[in-house]
Amino acid sequence: MERLDPKDVADALPGWTGGDDFITKVFKFDDFAQAFGFMTRIAITADKMDHHPEWFNVYNRVDVTLTTHDAGGVTQKDVTLAEAMEKAAG
Amino acid sequence: MERLDPKDVADALPGWTGGDDFITKVFKFDDFAQAFGFMTRIAITADKMDHHPEWFNVYNRVDVTLTTHDAGGVTQKDVTLAEAMEKAAG
Repeated sequence: MERLDPKDVADALPGWTGGDDFITKVFKFDDFAQAFGFMTRIAITADKMDHHPEWFNVYNRVDVTLTTHDAGGVTQKDVTLAEAMEKAAG
Repeated sequence: MERLDPKDVADALPGWTGGDDFITKVFKFDDFAQAFGFMTRIAITADKMDHHPEWFNVYNRVDVTLTTHDAGGVTQKDVTLAEAMEKAAG
């Protein structure tokens, strides 16, 4: 799977930052139920894709990091999952 | 709410470690669906208690940290949530 430039990928997504081999964003919601509802929607999408996020949650906050371990960097899979997150959070 | 000694609390729970003002454990499951199923069960319990974990998930792994911010340490709420986690993971 082709590796993409994390900075280019992040620039095309609202609020995302590109690292060496990942993209990352902090999502904030009104409360825990909304934050976890977001995670639940994404969990189903991610498991269908067999492509899983690294994410940290405390109360209304979800810190997400996306990378494609098999490719050693950011790929179209991460873009697709990030876009699903934007849709679920929006 | 009375603060408890994190080390004493952790010693009474299987696989937990006590820090200065928290208890922590890494839960491992067979796969993402099982890990997220565990998180979903706990999310409902936690929101009912209005006492939320700090947790990190990647694939089959869930790293949990419990503390009671209002009390500045570990309280019975953390014990109750940790026990619910043991039940959900067991």
